[in-house]
Amino acid sequence: MVNVGILGATGMVGQRFIELLAQHPKFEITALTASQRSAGKKYEDATTWYLDSNMPESVKDIKVVDTDPSQVDDVDIVFSALPTENAAIVEPKFAEKHIVASNASAMRMEDDVPLVIPEVNPEYLDLIELQQKNRGWDGFIVTNPNCSTIALTITLKPIYDQFDIKRVYVSTMQAVSGAGYNGVPSMAIVDNLVPFIGGEEEKMETETQHLLGSLEDGVVTPASFGVSASCHRVSVVDGHTEAVFIETEDKCDMDEIHAAMDQFRGMPQKLDLYSAPEKPIVIRPEDNRPQPRMDRNQDGGMAVTVGRLREDAAFENSFRYVLVGHNTIRGAAGASILNAELINEIM
Amino acid sequence: MVNVGILGATGMVGQRFIELLAQHPKFEITALTASQRSAGKKYEDATTWYLDSNMPESVKDIKVVDTDPSQVDDVDIVFSALPTENAAIVEPKFAEKHIVASNASAMRMEDDVPLVIPEVNPEYLDLIELQQKNRGWDGFIVTNPNCSTIALTITLKPIYDQFDIKRVYVSTMQAVSGAGYNGVPSMAIVDNLVPFIGGEEEKMETETQHLLGSLEDGVVTPASFGVSASCHRVSVVDGHTEAVFIETEDKCDMDEIHAAMDQFRGMPQKLDLYSAPEKPIVIRPEDNRPQPRMDRNQDGGMAVTVGRLREDAAFENSFRYVLVGHNTIRGAAGASILNAELINEIM
Amino acid sequence: MVNVGILGATGMVGQRFIELLAQHPKFEITALTASQRSAGKKYEDATTWYLDSNMPESVKDIKVVDTDPSQVDDVDIVFSALPTENAAIVEPKFAEKHIVASNASAMRMEDDVPLVIPEVNPEYLDLIELQQKNRGWDGFIVTNPNCSTIALTITLKPIYDQFDIKRVYVSTMQAVSGAGYNGVPSMAIVDNLVPFIGGEEEKMETETQHLLGSLEDGVVTPASFGVSASCHRVSVVDGHTEAVFIETEDKCDMDEIHAAMDQFRGMPQKLDLYSAPEKPIVIRPEDNRPQPRMDRNQDGGMAVTVGRLREDAAFENSFRYVLVGHNTIRGAAGASILNAELINEIM
Amino acid sequence: MVNVGILGATGMVGQRFIELLAQHPKFEITALTASQRSAGKKYEDATTWYLDSNMPESVKDIKVVDTDPSQVDDVDIVFSALPTENAAIVEPKFAEKHIVASNASAMRMEDDVPLVIPEVNPEYLDLIELQQKNRGWDGFIVTNPNCSTIALTITLKPIYDQFDIKRVYVSTMQAVSGAGYNGVPSMAIVDNLVPFIGGEEEKMETETQHLLGSLEDGVVTPASFGVSASCHRVSVVDGHTEAVFIETEDKCDMDEIHAAMDQFRGMPQKLDLYSAPEKPIVIRPEDNRPQPRMDRNQDGGMAVTVGRLREDAAFENSFRYVLVGHNTIRGAAGASILNAELINEIM
Repeated sequence: MVNVGILGATGMVGQRFIELLAQHPKFEITALTASQRSAGKKYEDATTWYLDSNMPESVKDIKVVDTDPSQVDDVDIVFSALPTENAAIVEPKFAEKHIVASNASAMRMEDDVPLVIPEVNPEYLDLIELQQKNRGWDGFIVTNPNCSTIALTITLKPIYDQFDIKRVYVSTMQAVSGAGYNGVPSMAIVDNLVPFIGGEEEKMETETQHLLGSLEDGVVTPASFGVSASCHRVSVVDGHTEAVFIETEDKCDMDEIHAAMDQFRGMPQKLDLYSAPEKPIVIRPEDNRPQPRMDRNQDGGMAVTVGRLREDAAFENSFRYVLVGHNTIRGAAGASILNAELINEIM
Repeated sequence: MVNVGILGATGMVGQRFIELLAQHPKFEITALTASQRSAGKKYEDATTWYLDSNMPESVKDIKVVDTDPSQVDDVDIVFSALPTENAAIVEPKFAEKHIVASNASAMRMEDDVPLVIPEVNPEYLDLIELQQKNRGWDGFIVTNPNCSTIALTITLKPIYDQFDIKRVYVSTMQAVSGAGYNGVPSMAIVDNLVPFIGGEEEKMETETQHLLGSLEDGVVTPASFGVSASCHRVSVVDGHTEAVFIETEDKCDMDEIHAAMDQFRGMPQKLDLYSAPEKPIVIRPEDNRPQPRMDRNQDGGMAVTVGRLREDAAFENSFRYVLVGHNTIRGAAGASILNAELINEIM
Repeated sequence: MVNVGILGATGMVGQRFIELLAQHPKFEITALTASQRSAGKKYEDATTWYLDSNMPESVKDIKVVDTDPSQVDDVDIVFSALPTENAAIVEPKFAEKHIVASNASAMRMEDDVPLVIPEVNPEYLDLIELQQKNRGWDGFIVTNPNCSTIALTITLKPIYDQFDIKRVYVSTMQAVSGAGYNGVPSMAIVDNLVPFIGGEEEKMETETQHLLGSLEDGVVTPASFGVSASCHRVSVVDGHTEAVFIETEDKCDMDEIHAAMDQFRGMPQKLDLYSAPEKPIVIRPEDNRPQPRMDRNQDGGMAVTVGRLREDAAFENSFRYVLVGHNTIRGAAGASILNAELINEIM
Repeated sequence: MVNVGILGATGMVGQRFIELLAQHPKFEITALTASQRSAGKKYEDATTWYLDSNMPESVKDIKVVDTDPSQVDDVDIVFSALPTENAAIVEPKFAEKHIVASNASAMRMEDDVPLVIPEVNPEYLDLIELQQKNRGWDGFIVTNPNCSTIALTITLKPIYDQFDIKRVYVSTMQAVSGAGYNGVPSMAIVDNLVPFIGGEEEKMETETQHLLGSLEDGVVTPASFGVSASCHRVSVVDGHTEAVFIETEDKCDMDEIHAAMDQFRGMPQKLDLYSAPEKPIVIRPEDNRPQPRMDRNQDGGMAVTVGRLREDAAFENSFRYVLVGHNTIRGAAGASILNAELINEIM
């Protein structure tokens, strides 16, 4: 078993890490960190549990420590569910000795930090060597993208590979859990929606290009197609829905698109990683799917469900679809864990 | 006072007609029709009232009659809130003698039936003469577009006129009232959304082109730009929200776009029609607006609120915004009433 | 394995039966019935699946038959998820040869039909002999109570046994799934609640007294304490919440009440039945629990969660609590299955 | 015109004060206070407006001042929408010179401070003289009860007067606006409810008894009947719903109860105060009313709507009903304004 720690273990994404790791066959939770206010308490006493599942028995008695490398021994991998500002300061300290698999955005766009979705660009892990050399670290940081970006990019990958992409327009309907437990007041969401999520559109646009770019001589060149995002918060607990409009460079017909998505498999599937969904993309044929409450938990929340895959006759080489991905599983904790499983397998 | 009747007066849109007409300074409700099941009853007894306002006293005792021209005397204008299939059969019968201002989709795309938004294409009313000649009617039918289309097209009009439009992508988040009182089960919408509304995308695409087309020699030539729509139902009672992405033919900067929308006025404003909003488009500067619960009732639900007006750097001559329009007021009953006010004023 | 059939298998409760029975170690689904419209189709084709879990593979190809005993062979137990009116006609026909474990209300209050919660009044199963004699059936019907009644009565049982009950007031906040998929329009529940559920209050009042009564010489004498219910529908998918106010005949202190509920075990626990929760009542100490989304799935949805257990200083021998029970599992399909497991074990 | 100020004008209840007072025929807003962070700014710039109506033009340019009597000149009445802790410190300072009509709970249970609902116990205003003498103030403080208590007590008053009350059980389903804009996270309320509101049950129990007590020789003796409350937060924006169970001392039949409630009028009705509803209690005959979204705005949100008025056969002299009252209008800002109107009229 690999000993793992969770940084920022009491928040919503921290809790998802715990839920997903509690039964993990290769990773064992041995350290949980939080802010100083919680340090010294048992996890059970330090935490208001927000998930629908009960808190796993195995973590209840773990003593929470301050988020500081000196407090965390005997741990190989730390998962980071820290807020961005904290992550920027703390993750580099942990990376001196530890593998840091981070869900935070702080280090994502650093030149020598791999931003990775295992099905999409596992080769970016090659940056690790450069990172360690540059920074003189024994450990390293690997990051996963923003929740909305992950689901989108997984569906773009097989299309990009086969038909090249010219334009992407995406309009999201995002779950409230993405903002953290206290992030969206109920006054803002009952009989309402909020057409703005700070920084989200920029992340979707730049991270998507970055993930579908190419790595050569230690430098990532982003993909050159345009991405335009409009992000909205709706009255859904978990599961981001995205309406996607695509124009490809190459001619494509709907059968080919369907096949490309349906047959898409990545490294996690080839290596049969524990958290890997059987298929990264599950296509539903029904008119009225995907729906977040019905589809977010597909393959334990690790598959992205696509539906309404249809031609866009208004424009050449164009088509549309709707996707649902679980924002705190595939889009956050599960993404970091899959990154760690891949690293654990191949390095 | 002009005597008016409402066809399909007991349903949700029928009730909006009543609410909006109860205090109208020029129109007086003198006839209410419904299915045979309700005919003969007092309106109060025939109707389960769904609106948040109370049923107006003035209609409670009106005797509901069957939806048949022979049952409706002494009425100049009838407003139609009929289901499509009924409308197709009944509206032509009424048009033999009456002015029919219809919210139904049945006759919208007929060659000689004006599909009109008074701020957008009042000149299509010229088709009336042709319609009467073609069909030998003393009355005529005028229609308004689908709820989502109206809000969208009002915002497109000033842009189209000034910069010409090349592409429109629109992703909607539509209120449940759009489907009628029983249209969307709560099981489908609590902690969920439904990414499909039958026929809606087609209507948005064809009606928008039709409305922004040109009428020459009695023939409408639709506008030639492409429109691609993805339509979704979310947990909101009233008020459709739409994320709009536009590429123009001509160069445009954001100040010009802002000014074009803000300064846009149409015939209803020039004629100071009773139901006309002061400005058809109200632009909100806040990051997080428009929101359906906050903005749907702008100008009594007759203005469309636009927010998040911003450049789209990913593509040339491109920008984005989010709009909210009240789907059963500006998008249905209020639209028909504004059509009737225009006709009453100019014909 | 015992072969079982499900009557009314395509509706919401029918689907819960399938979900719960698909992995059952003793029962195997071999027959599925529905209305004539569905008969002859594969279950997969006959059904719009409403549950968040995917339809179990094992039932997809089962051919749906008409709900008629002549269509159902080789089945020992049939579970009934039929609407009341159907159940009244069809269940007796099935009972001629089959064991019918019914969730319908049609036969619940018949003198010789056991209305049973296995933890509360398993002894009522003695009525079966009488029922078979009375009606000349080889099979028989056993029923479970209404969803709200089950959760309430499970919590009343240990209190009634130990302190005798004088008064019960209960105010419910019920999930929309209780009305079936199309039962509650979203227009009725977004930013709203509905303070009425037809027949529900009467069922809660009479069934509770019946369940806590006594069976002597083949006659059930209902408990004599008063029950007053007020039932309301709120914006929750699954899980009924009930605020309960109790006055006991005997003196009671809060520690005793707490212990009585916490230590309560019934036949299913003693016999270790497959669907039995470890404890029928789970008491949460937190101020703000139970909550339906958090607690409805406790023990696979078969335990009732109690919280806010507190004295009621306003009245003598009085206390209050709030409970949550899963209405379509513990309150419907799971209740019938637990009845069948008990019968299968002891008869 | 009477010049009025609003203490805590930028919060949710402060905004309701502004909305209700903007068009008031006798009160004119001339001062708005908030925390130091906002002081010095124009109201428009200091405030995120939360209400569905637009911010009234008349207050946009008013300069917000610190909540300190030295900053507020030329004002006769101040309305307090302060948080409890602030109110305890600041209201007495204002009362040295001003009339303070407070919605805060801080001073409600002080012996010499009238806690008043104008329809219920206007005679408690006699305490003002004592208060001024006790405290040496030129001004004074008058308070209104908690939001849930107001709606409940208005409905109890005619019953108490005519039949005497023995027991009241009340279970609430309260709107999220009652907790302030940020009070209830959407994670807590989507597909969920929260069965706890800190301090609410205690307030409902003690304030109700206090309001229906009697004032003699400057001392309030609370009513002696018991009140037991269970308070819950549900997914509703505005409008508290309460299920009420009552046992009276005297014999009562349902017609008498109905008549007592329906015919109930208080001082505001007799004096025809501007904010007074025509009838304090509006009884709806429909099975499924009152509903918060439909009934909260009855009489501008100042009437309490009662429905499901029905016998409680389980107990002697008992009956039940459900009520809806607007929590931030009748239950907060409107309550303070009605108190001020009464004082302005009679003192």
